[in-house]
Amino acid sequence: MMNTFGNLFRVTSFGESHGPMVGCVIDGCPPNLELSEKNIQKYLDKRCPGKSKITSERKEKDICEIVSGVFEGRTTGTPIAVLVRNHDARSQDYEKLKDVFRPSHADATYQLKYGIRDYRGGGRSSGRETIARVIGGAVAQQILKSTKTKIIGFAREIGGTFFENVDFNFIEENPLRMADKKEFEKIFSQLQKIKTEKNSLGGVVEIRVINPPAGLGSPVFGKLEADLASACLSVGSVKGFEIGEGFTLSRMKGSEANDSLVSFLNPGLKISQSRVQTLRNANGGILGGISTGEDIWFRVAIKPTSSIGQKQKTIDSKGNEIELEIEGRHDSIIVPRVIPILEAMTALVLVDQLFLHRAQIGK
Amino acid sequence: MMNTFGNLFRVTSFGESHGPMVGCVIDGCPPNLELSEKNIQKYLDKRCPGKSKITSERKEKDICEIVSGVFEGRTTGTPIAVLVRNHDARSQDYEKLKDVFRPSHADATYQLKYGIRDYRGGGRSSGRETIARVIGGAVAQQILKSTKTKIIGFAREIGGTFFENVDFNFIEENPLRMADKKEFEKIFSQLQKIKTEKNSLGGVVEIRVINPPAGLGSPVFGKLEADLASACLSVGSVKGFEIGEGFTLSRMKGSEANDSLVSFLNPGLKISQSRVQTLRNANGGILGGISTGEDIWFRVAIKPTSSIGQKQKTIDSKGNEIELEIEGRHDSIIVPRVIPILEAMTALVLVDQLFLHRAQIGK
Amino acid sequence: MMNTFGNLFRVTSFGESHGPMVGCVIDGCPPNLELSEKNIQKYLDKRCPGKSKITSERKEKDICEIVSGVFEGRTTGTPIAVLVRNHDARSQDYEKLKDVFRPSHADATYQLKYGIRDYRGGGRSSGRETIARVIGGAVAQQILKSTKTKIIGFAREIGGTFFENVDFNFIEENPLRMADKKEFEKIFSQLQKIKTEKNSLGGVVEIRVINPPAGLGSPVFGKLEADLASACLSVGSVKGFEIGEGFTLSRMKGSEANDSLVSFLNPGLKISQSRVQTLRNANGGILGGISTGEDIWFRVAIKPTSSIGQKQKTIDSKGNEIELEIEGRHDSIIVPRVIPILEAMTALVLVDQLFLHRAQIGK
Amino acid sequence: MMNTFGNLFRVTSFGESHGPMVGCVIDGCPPNLELSEKNIQKYLDKRCPGKSKITSERKEKDICEIVSGVFEGRTTGTPIAVLVRNHDARSQDYEKLKDVFRPSHADATYQLKYGIRDYRGGGRSSGRETIARVIGGAVAQQILKSTKTKIIGFAREIGGTFFENVDFNFIEENPLRMADKKEFEKIFSQLQKIKTEKNSLGGVVEIRVINPPAGLGSPVFGKLEADLASACLSVGSVKGFEIGEGFTLSRMKGSEANDSLVSFLNPGLKISQSRVQTLRNANGGILGGISTGEDIWFRVAIKPTSSIGQKQKTIDSKGNEIELEIEGRHDSIIVPRVIPILEAMTALVLVDQLFLHRAQIGK
Repeated sequence: MMNTFGNLFRVTSFGESHGPMVGCVIDGCPPNLELSEKNIQKYLDKRCPGKSKITSERKEKDICEIVSGVFEGRTTGTPIAVLVRNHDARSQDYEKLKDVFRPSHADATYQLKYGIRDYRGGGRSSGRETIARVIGGAVAQQILKSTKTKIIGFAREIGGTFFENVDFNFIEENPLRMADKKEFEKIFSQLQKIKTEKNSLGGVVEIRVINPPAGLGSPVFGKLEADLASACLSVGSVKGFEIGEGFTLSRMKGSEANDSLVSFLNPGLKISQSRVQTLRNANGGILGGISTGEDIWFRVAIKPTSSIGQKQKTIDSKGNEIELEIEGRHDSIIVPRVIPILEAMTALVLVDQLFLHRAQIGK
Repeated sequence: MMNTFGNLFRVTSFGESHGPMVGCVIDGCPPNLELSEKNIQKYLDKRCPGKSKITSERKEKDICEIVSGVFEGRTTGTPIAVLVRNHDARSQDYEKLKDVFRPSHADATYQLKYGIRDYRGGGRSSGRETIARVIGGAVAQQILKSTKTKIIGFAREIGGTFFENVDFNFIEENPLRMADKKEFEKIFSQLQKIKTEKNSLGGVVEIRVINPPAGLGSPVFGKLEADLASACLSVGSVKGFEIGEGFTLSRMKGSEANDSLVSFLNPGLKISQSRVQTLRNANGGILGGISTGEDIWFRVAIKPTSSIGQKQKTIDSKGNEIELEIEGRHDSIIVPRVIPILEAMTALVLVDQLFLHRAQIGK
Repeated sequence: MMNTFGNLFRVTSFGESHGPMVGCVIDGCPPNLELSEKNIQKYLDKRCPGKSKITSERKEKDICEIVSGVFEGRTTGTPIAVLVRNHDARSQDYEKLKDVFRPSHADATYQLKYGIRDYRGGGRSSGRETIARVIGGAVAQQILKSTKTKIIGFAREIGGTFFENVDFNFIEENPLRMADKKEFEKIFSQLQKIKTEKNSLGGVVEIRVINPPAGLGSPVFGKLEADLASACLSVGSVKGFEIGEGFTLSRMKGSEANDSLVSFLNPGLKISQSRVQTLRNANGGILGGISTGEDIWFRVAIKPTSSIGQKQKTIDSKGNEIELEIEGRHDSIIVPRVIPILEAMTALVLVDQLFLHRAQIGK
Repeated sequence: MMNTFGNLFRVTSFGESHGPMVGCVIDGCPPNLELSEKNIQKYLDKRCPGKSKITSERKEKDICEIVSGVFEGRTTGTPIAVLVRNHDARSQDYEKLKDVFRPSHADATYQLKYGIRDYRGGGRSSGRETIARVIGGAVAQQILKSTKTKIIGFAREIGGTFFENVDFNFIEENPLRMADKKEFEKIFSQLQKIKTEKNSLGGVVEIRVINPPAGLGSPVFGKLEADLASACLSVGSVKGFEIGEGFTLSRMKGSEANDSLVSFLNPGLKISQSRVQTLRNANGGILGGISTGEDIWFRVAIKPTSSIGQKQKTIDSKGNEIELEIEGRHDSIIVPRVIPILEAMTALVLVDQLFLHRAQIGK
């Protein structure tokens, strides 16, 4: 609710873009888990900008500091608080946005709801808030090592171009987190052109969960795909979600859409060892709200970066129409930076559902 | 979590397809609201099948009975329990499905997770569970009368055909809940053919919230679109969700996707009287997680009915491959029956967020 | 919150004294637990009045009906809804209380808060609501069989007389649920006299949990004693709670109050097999918020029945001073009827904490 | 649950005694509330030791730092994170307690549950954790200014001596937070003697809420006294709770215990302006779980400080019996330091219930 995510594995996020720090408190983590700043830092580095010519040039060094919940390198079962200081924040860039509502940003609705807002860098609505999610996700992914579950995200589409090939090894080698090597150069050039035009592109991210526990989720309101949808839509710029073949399924006949079950392994064993298998995994690794044990896969629509350098029509806080040219440093595509955040949110959902399962079923 | 939906306005659902009844308990309802069975029954009637040749012929009379929380026609602030008895349930139709896992159904994963299942009519995973949601939604829509908010859903696509025209008046006049009169006959004939082929179709539902309160939702995990996505994906057969222009936005340039703000009315007044307006409402009435006060609109992908009469390959509970012909009465399209459920879930989200808003902001 | 108790094992209560029924929905119950109406009925019979001359003569037959969540005698992991019909409710007894606020009852504050109230028999504030708790507790106690945990409550004090002896076998043999056989006759006579005086007595209940799991609870807000206190104070007529030696400890010196640890068994094993032992169990089986594995014991203060036949001063709903003689059938002591409710609440807390423990620690 | 307190006004606490800091995140605070470190610091100073010869000599300067949620001196509606650095922590004092379980402390049960523990200064079970509560309570008390509600706690009993007189002005003038000036010198001398004996005393705290909103709480699980009991029992060293005349009521006859209603003011107006009045407020300002608007009052039993300098029998982590002399700096009475914590917990409960009320009732 509001600033805490999860039922049993809970991340409480805090901090604004231009305050002293952002951070989170993680509650419900099992004791005796190995955890150090290093485990978290590698995920923070993935979301960090400044890696290429097409992402924002703001030079953030997002260094995390664990301030509670870890003793001699292991978790103690108490809340894990992690802080990341803000610096290199040029508040003056934002001073002129004080009374201006940027198009497709949270500025106007935040002001409408709360009657006050920290306008500097988007305040609480800034992308910097996602640091808290990445930290939480890092701890969750540390827990998922015990089930050998891996979460991999990549750009499936950019600017309307769908990429057919999937080579997981390529993802870490390119700044766009594409998995299709053949298409990379073309898209990268397109994005450089978009940048010179002071414009931006969006895309579609695909998340794959390799070797997830089977049996996660429940048949009614606790459906696993409902939690995943909520987790993804809680990330800024996300406009859509589809599980498995998603919208495409809705355009098929039942005889085409249905996916034959082909095996049912080890029912009754520990959930990490049981699974249901289907012919083509059309439903994205989830049937009836519960994971089959097959790879979970879903896609997420990311709108183009709202902050563009072109002149735009908008209004100020008094409702007057004005023209706006947003200065400052902005990404011409946000997709690659959103990917580690979606991976993190996926990890949070899986661990929370794993603990809910364990609480009720006991194995 | 699991069988309760909502934070402050909470619906707890119970019941299986072939047990004595289904029902729900609604907690958090304000006192002194006018409420009778009649207010609820009209929504239940909307989800009821047996209306046309293309929907299931099961003759259910879903008669609701309020058994607590209402005194002399008004709510008292205590939990409102509402029951609907099951009847006309031919359990014997399902006996032969006892050890069979139907493709694209919850059978196998339910068995995997819980190690036991009421196989009759899908048990808890049956569509009859949605009666609880429709009841909760009916009470929520009774509350939303005070803000003059209306929720209207219709079939935007069926079997891959997109319907351009939107005539709200036509929705109640046709069994498919289409809003495009011109296209109706063609699609209806197509569905009759599908039915004779023992096949099924899916579609895309569009939900419009007319005159929603502005200021609902919050900037981080409490984003209004995240709650809506979760609510929609918690409904069986739903495979995707997009807010506003959704996936289409992800294929535009920023300059095209951005939606100019055009006015900012009455900030600081009661939220039902304030609003932000944009040029084309591309973001679906929500910016930065908070409603603008414009119409909220989103689309939901519904897969084709999984229960088809054609012979299908699947497995039994021992993992043996078998061929299955599902008998019984099934809808060749589930879309029109899902619409009132999605409307109900939308109402639940709006009222819950309205109360969260009121709790924190106080107006 | 409000009408749902518990985090993971949740009981949602509904119903009023003079509506058609009271009941509850139990969510989070593990699957494959043996459960039938019989398991629940025996607990309902314990709370039932009509057993002796000093309790209310209302002849209720509180017959429970399980309407969901159980299939072929075992739970399926879905919500368990249980109903108990109201009958023998003489609403006309209460008609004259319509505009009257009884002293030390909920009438006036309910009206103040909600602006409406079902005045018949206390409505939602009636003791009949506790049927829902007893049902939930019955299921919880069914779960606690697996850890061989037993919960026993008895009257430790009545009308200010403290009973020294504790003979568990005597509890079921007397209508006061006293554990001290020697004192019974004297107290029983005293109560008959109180009854003829149209007066009432209160008392102190002691609850003992025999063989509880060790390790339940957590060090800060999740302290086991905090949950127990909240559970007990949520029962009508309860005015105080003390864990272990409680208020008596506050009057000792540290050297007297401190309780030496004498053993530490099997740390690291399954929690049901580990335990900490102290010399005299002064802290009631809980140290630092976490159960030691010793018997948990606490005491609960019950005020005398508020409904007495004597003439009392009070006000009506317009604020006018009036004199009131409450008619109808009332218990001259509520203590024996509150005991099974406190046992039930204790069971609910233990199972909820057991599941929280299992979720975080995994064993 | 575990480390978050509250439903709508939520405080998430983190930090250990000898880590770098303790702190909390407050979520659900209304926007536009004036708030600075100064508002919080005055409450932290009240709980700070080092004020007299009978409290611990550890010289903590608990300086708070607000790191989010406040902009230009006012809250923005986002999470308020507040940090307090630890210093003057002599970890070496605790090194010898590494494998020792102190009597009546959390050491043994923490180890039993989690299998790991930060033994330095009690780790998470340390009294320093209560800083988070005092911070949360400070913000809550800032909110309660709008309803002119004041919370005052004082020592009603010390070491078994009950203090009759109540002079609120004296509370801040003496290190024991007694309200009875006449008794102070005698008790203070007694405590100095206790200190030289390396022993400790406990006591009973009384909390009074002056001018609380009427109508807070609800009739079943959300009873206001249940929340208060839970809040108080969640504080270390607390062993009992009674609302109003509490245990004393349980020893009266109904005719004595019942408290006549004498007026019913302004029903239907804003809750801060309505109230029910009784003759002697025996039920502590709460009837049927809902506040009357009269002063809320309750008492809390505090056991004597567990850390005493005398030699004590206990066991080490291998279960061997040993003798222990606890060194370091300890309070010979914890009562005066617990009072501001209980005041804070009371404020948290009231604000949370105020927001719950506002959410459901809307005024």
